[in-house]
Amino acid sequence: MISFAGGQPDPALFPLEELKNASELAFQKHGSQLLQYGISEGYIPLREKIFERYYKNINYQGLSPENILITTGSQQALDLIGKIFINPGDPILIERPGYLGAIQAFSLYEPFTIGVPLEDDGLDTFVLENTLSKTKPKFLYSNPTFQNPTGKTLSIEKRRRISEILRMENCILIEDNPYGEIRFESDTMPSIQSFYPERTISIGTFSKTLSPGFRVGWVCAPEEIINKLLIAKQASDLHSNILSQIVLNEYLNHYDLDLQIDKIRNSYKLKKEAMESALNRYLVEFADWISPKGGMFFWLNLKNDLNTMKLFETAIANNVAFVPGNPFYTGVAETNTMRINFSHSSIETIERGICRIGESIQKLSPISVQG
Amino acid sequence: MISFAGGQPDPALFPLEELKNASELAFQKHGSQLLQYGISEGYIPLREKIFERYYKNINYQGLSPENILITTGSQQALDLIGKIFINPGDPILIERPGYLGAIQAFSLYEPFTIGVPLEDDGLDTFVLENTLSKTKPKFLYSNPTFQNPTGKTLSIEKRRRISEILRMENCILIEDNPYGEIRFESDTMPSIQSFYPERTISIGTFSKTLSPGFRVGWVCAPEEIINKLLIAKQASDLHSNILSQIVLNEYLNHYDLDLQIDKIRNSYKLKKEAMESALNRYLVEFADWISPKGGMFFWLNLKNDLNTMKLFETAIANNVAFVPGNPFYTGVAETNTMRINFSHSSIETIERGICRIGESIQKLSPISVQG
Repeated sequence: MISFAGGQPDPALFPLEELKNASELAFQKHGSQLLQYGISEGYIPLREKIFERYYKNINYQGLSPENILITTGSQQALDLIGKIFINPGDPILIERPGYLGAIQAFSLYEPFTIGVPLEDDGLDTFVLENTLSKTKPKFLYSNPTFQNPTGKTLSIEKRRRISEILRMENCILIEDNPYGEIRFESDTMPSIQSFYPERTISIGTFSKTLSPGFRVGWVCAPEEIINKLLIAKQASDLHSNILSQIVLNEYLNHYDLDLQIDKIRNSYKLKKEAMESALNRYLVEFADWISPKGGMFFWLNLKNDLNTMKLFETAIANNVAFVPGNPFYTGVAETNTMRINFSHSSIETIERGICRIGESIQKLSPISVQG
Repeated sequence: MISFAGGQPDPALFPLEELKNASELAFQKHGSQLLQYGISEGYIPLREKIFERYYKNINYQGLSPENILITTGSQQALDLIGKIFINPGDPILIERPGYLGAIQAFSLYEPFTIGVPLEDDGLDTFVLENTLSKTKPKFLYSNPTFQNPTGKTLSIEKRRRISEILRMENCILIEDNPYGEIRFESDTMPSIQSFYPERTISIGTFSKTLSPGFRVGWVCAPEEIINKLLIAKQASDLHSNILSQIVLNEYLNHYDLDLQIDKIRNSYKLKKEAMESALNRYLVEFADWISPKGGMFFWLNLKNDLNTMKLFETAIANNVAFVPGNPFYTGVAETNTMRINFSHSSIETIERGICRIGESIQKLSPISVQG
C-alpha cells in the first residue's frame, strides 16, 4: 500500500543524531529538573528563542517572550482556543476547505462554523467582509501559507486587506502557520499578524521542522488572551512534557535550525516536483491543481465531478491511499476534491502511487472522464 | 520561605540515572520512531505493561490493554472526561473537600458540582445514596486512597457499598488513584473499580512514582467510554509525547519499579512521621488531623474556627506557605482547614516549617486559640 493520506514529515530528515546529543546534554546539565513538574507557560529559554526567531520583528509593544505559551503540539493550541472562545452555537469562520485538525478541535465545542471560500490567492475577501459584518463571529481561523489541505498561499495584498477587514469588526484572527518555513522559493511572506498584532493569535510548531513526536507547539498572543489560554492550559494538562522542551532548547543552543530547514526544503521541493511531473504524466486529463510553493500537499479537483469518496475505494483496492476532500469542508463539500501528501514518500513511490491513482480513475469511470 | 503548598515529589528520589540510561537506549533502539507522530491511543508496549501491572487481576472480560489510553498526565484524563460527559448545568458529584485539579478541569465545562462529604473512612455513603437518586449526576469523581487534599482512605466496606449504590443508578465512577502505591503500611486496598468494572473510569499516572515532568498518565475504561475519550484525545493534542512514553517503557524493561516505589515509601514515611511529630509538638492545641497511611499530605482542621486564609497571610510573613482549604471546596468552604505537603521538604525543613506555622497561629489569635 502506498499512502499519500497522512501529513507526516519524512523521518529520514529528522535530526536524530543531533537530538540524541541534545538529549544527553539535557540529562547531564539539567538533572532532576527534566523530571519534575514544570511551569504551565513552558520552559522559559525555549519561549525566549521562539520569540526571538518568529516574533521579534513585529512592530508591536504588546509582545514579548511572556506572550508565548508552550502547548502539547499546535493541536492543543486549537483545543485551548476552542475552550476559551466557543460556546455552543457561537459563529466562527474558517477557510473552505480548511484544516481538518482545527475543524475537529473546534467542533467539540459545538460552534456554528461558517466556511469562507478560498480563491487561488487565498481567502475570498469579499465574502469574508460580508460574512464578518453579518455574523459577528468569535474568530477567523486561517492557515494562510501553504495551506493544509490546498497548498494555497494568501497573497500579500490580501493579508493587508484582511487585517483591515478584521480591524473594522474588532474580530480575533487565529493564524496557524505550521508550514511557513517549508517554502520552495526564496521570497518570504509577512504574517497577517504583522499587520494586525493587537488581535491575532499566532500558532506555531516544531512538528514539521524537528519532531512531531515531541509534541511541542506554541501560541503567541496579546496578554489578555494568553492569560485566558494559560488558565485553560493548566486545567487541560498542567504543562507540556518538560524533557522534550529542554531537549529542543539544547538542540537550538548547539545546532542551526536553518540548516535543518534547508535540508527539508530541498528534499520536499524535489518530491513536490516529482509528484507534479507524475501528475502531469498520469492525471492531467482528469484533474486540475495549483502547484504549491511550499508545505506538504497537492490538492486535486477532479474533472467531470468524479466523486473522490468512490475513487478512494477503487484506489485502496489498487493499493494507494489519499484523503478525499469531504472532511475538510464544514457544510456542503465539493465531492470531486482530494488531498495528496508528498513529504512522506520517496520519489520512486510518488511516481508509482500517482500512476496507480490514474489507473484507479480510469477503472472507475473510463467513459465519463474521457467524454 | 518554606513551602508545604505544592504537591511535588521529592526530586532527590527521581531515578535520574536509570531514566538517563533508558533515554539512551530509546535513541539507540527506536531511532526516528521517537520523533515521528505516534498513535493517539499511546505506545502499545507501555499500555500492555500498565494493564499487566494495574488491571490484569480485575475479574471482568471487558478490559484489555486496548482499554488503556495514554494521556498527557492524569490532568488530561480529567479534561477529556469533562469534555465528553459534561454539558453546562449537568450535575456531577465530587468529594467534599475534593481534588483541586479535578474541580478546575471539570469547571471549565460548567457543570453543577455537588460535594459529597468525607467522613474519616471516606465518602459519606448515606449522603451519596440520597444525592445520587435525587440528582442523577453524570458521574461521581473520587480519589479514594490517600486522598488529595485530606489524606483519607475509603474503607473496604464502603468500597463495596459505593459500588452497589452506583450500580443501582447505573452511575459512572471516576476513580483517580495517583497515590495508591505510596502507602506506609503493608496492607493494600482493592480498587472500587474491582467491584464495579463495568462503569468505572480508572485514572493513573507515573507522576508520583517516576516523573511528573514526563506527563504520562492513563485512563482505563470499558470500550464504549474509551472510544469516546480517544476521539476527544485526538482533538485535544493528537497524542502524548512519544519520547517519554518510549523512555518509560525502556525503564520498565530494565529496572524494577517496585524497588523505586519502596524507596519513595520509605522516605515519605519518615517525612510523614517527622511532620506528625512536629504537629504534635507545635500544633496539637490548635488543630486536629488524621494520620495519613500514604500519599503526600496532612489535612488540618484548626480549632476555634480560625480562618486559614487569614492565617496564610501571617504565615507568609513568617516565611512558611501552605494551601488554605478553601479552593478544595465547591460551594461553601470550611474555612478552618488547610493542606500541608510533606513529600517535597527535608525532615529538618519540616520541623522548622511546622514550628513557624505554630508561631503564626499564636501571632494571629493568641487569645482565642488558647481560650
